[in-house]
Amino acid sequence: MFDWQLHTRIVCGAGALARLGELARGLGTRALLVTDPGIVQAGHLGRAEAILQAAGVATAVFAQVHENPTTADVAACLEVAQDFAPDLLIALGGGSAMDTAKGTNFLLTNGGPLSDFWVASPSRRGLTQPLLPTIAIPTTAGTGSEVQCHALIADSQSHAKMALGETGAEPTLALLDPELTLTLPRSVTAQTGIDALVHAIETAVTKPRTPHSLLFSHEAFRLLSSSFSRVLENSSDLEAREAMLLGATWAGLAIEYSMLGIAHSVANPLTAHFGVVHGQAVGVMLPHVIAFNAEDTTTRRAYAALGQSPEALSEQVTLWLQQAGMATTLGECGVSGEAIETLATEAARQWTASFNPRPVTAVDLAGLYRKAL
Amino acid sequence: MFDWQLHTRIVCGAGALARLGELARGLGTRALLVTDPGIVQAGHLGRAEAILQAAGVATAVFAQVHENPTTADVAACLEVAQDFAPDLLIALGGGSAMDTAKGTNFLLTNGGPLSDFWVASPSRRGLTQPLLPTIAIPTTAGTGSEVQCHALIADSQSHAKMALGETGAEPTLALLDPELTLTLPRSVTAQTGIDALVHAIETAVTKPRTPHSLLFSHEAFRLLSSSFSRVLENSSDLEAREAMLLGATWAGLAIEYSMLGIAHSVANPLTAHFGVVHGQAVGVMLPHVIAFNAEDTTTRRAYAALGQSPEALSEQVTLWLQQAGMATTLGECGVSGEAIETLATEAARQWTASFNPRPVTAVDLAGLYRKAL
Ligand SMILES: [Fe+2]
Ligand SMILES: [Fe+2]
Repeated sequence: MFDWQLHTRIVCGAGALARLGELARGLGTRALLVTDPGIVQAGHLGRAEAILQAAGVATAVFAQVHENPTTADVAACLEVAQDFAPDLLIALGGGSAMDTAKGTNFLLTNGGPLSDFWVASPSRRGLTQPLLPTIAIPTTAGTGSEVQCHALIADSQSHAKMALGETGAEPTLALLDPELTLTLPRSVTAQTGIDALVHAIETAVTKPRTPHSLLFSHEAFRLLSSSFSRVLENSSDLEAREAMLLGATWAGLAIEYSMLGIAHSVANPLTAHFGVVHGQAVGVMLPHVIAFNAEDTTTRRAYAALGQSPEALSEQVTLWLQQAGMATTLGECGVSGEAIETLATEAARQWTASFNPRPVTAVDLAGLYRKAL
Repeated sequence: MFDWQLHTRIVCGAGALARLGELARGLGTRALLVTDPGIVQAGHLGRAEAILQAAGVATAVFAQVHENPTTADVAACLEVAQDFAPDLLIALGGGSAMDTAKGTNFLLTNGGPLSDFWVASPSRRGLTQPLLPTIAIPTTAGTGSEVQCHALIADSQSHAKMALGETGAEPTLALLDPELTLTLPRSVTAQTGIDALVHAIETAVTKPRTPHSLLFSHEAFRLLSSSFSRVLENSSDLEAREAMLLGATWAGLAIEYSMLGIAHSVANPLTAHFGVVHGQAVGVMLPHVIAFNAEDTTTRRAYAALGQSPEALSEQVTLWLQQAGMATTLGECGVSGEAIETLATEAARQWTASFNPRPVTAVDLAGLYRKAL
């Protein structure tokens, strides 16, 4: 049984940023732009500001977004927001900009602290006051945060990574303009593209998958798998860039309904202990995860619904990594065999492990790390 | 560029009808049920009424829905509605029940006549007053009207078929319970199933197709094509019934964004002149339409995105017709060669012809009829 309502309006197309003024006018008159220094340097912020001002929307800017934002980052953004009193938030950037904007929105409208909205907190309280409308403008084809209701924020003190939010807290509007992704460095295109591909593949087989999550997983995979090589070969292929951006968004929606699997469970400890970039970490592990999960017949069929056998899919993932110049073994990532026991113990504790279609133990996960060495 | 907001909440699963009381309570307290005598006889209306009353929702019933509803049918339903003063409409049945409920909603909230909301009328006026919330409960896996904003109503005087409505007039909630389709006669399962398959295939290639219409076309085709034989072989295969019902809904959403092609243009005159049932008419013509459209390279690729070559797809459609005991030639449908010129002239005038990926003339369409003879 599924019960589905899509909360986010999605506007997508090359040059869609030009519609930002009109779209913002429909939602408010004072917009706080939340972005990071890279986006400012790329000129995207300047363009967005000019478009908004031409439409008569007053703007303020918080441009100090950091990767993996913390409660301190959100507090800094909140200060700017409280000074300016916006009636609209606009996140322009990757997942970190969107998460910072979401966290700011929670505090601005519902008070704090942020941990009040942590899904895993026993003292959690819901969002009782309406949020400000939000426009999310992704500049990478990656996380899908532009259509997701949760923000990932780390506690500055305890360093706990908190998933904050609830259904209904999705951005009001996702503005997908592939032109914004044209200037991405090749490495970012590769890492975020692999991550999106892993999202499409994992969501297609997880235990909580439903017919409406599969709607998004399958089309995400079709778009991403037919475009990933193209954007690597020709970074200015706008059609392929659009397919990557939209595929990442569809995969992000699939995650909302079906969660993720053990490629993500085993990746996080690799990032924590060896600094392996997320896309690299999930990518290097996925072929072994597919082989492990495909031993279960129902899961085999779920992989096959993506259009190829699990074996062909595993091979394809390795080919994509090679084509992107990414590592295909943990050895290349600087991971040593002695670490495996620790990594596996931590991986088994990851939330995502509970959604994997095949039940897993730390021993199983250690086996996957060993195969990937 | 696409700009998409999904207006309908979708609740889907075997036994979902049991949730009707709770879902209706969230929308109103006085529900008018719009249905037809077949649904009453099948016991579905009685169950729905009992569930609503147990939830404290007052009910009234209009059970005189006819196939291909007219303005007179809507007037009859409106009379019951005006007496009862509902704050919620519930359509229970096929496309005709949903269209009758939509037409009634327009008149009840915005006044008449219905032709005021005809999309093709030069004196058209928009819906200026809010509509009553509507729950659509399809009992066939066919038209997808449960997620569409338009109603097809024929003028009782002029017999003109009018498409009434506008974006935003979609049902508030679509309740998809495959158990309601278990008792469908085999012929209805076959006809509506073929129609849904044709919707998935045509929407995947039409000129106005967009990335978000393809999202629905592709998954609709995957669900329908993997389940059609199963429901014919075993009418009580609930999993396959659910896939058909959901596939028809996804295809219905695809139609909203991408329109239909010439399988529908050539089918309508067959229905008008020879009484060929809609599903049979589109089904018998589709293999020839695919062959015609696939001569265009881009359209070939659009068909192939469904997972097989246009040639294999054409053959598969014919196999499905045979398996369903449906005609595979126009001759079997009682159509004679002399009628072709008239049929082709009328088909060329159909609105759907303008959305076909390859431009067509009456001569092209006559060629398709001849091949299908
Ligand atoms: Fe990821
Ligand atoms: Fe149809």
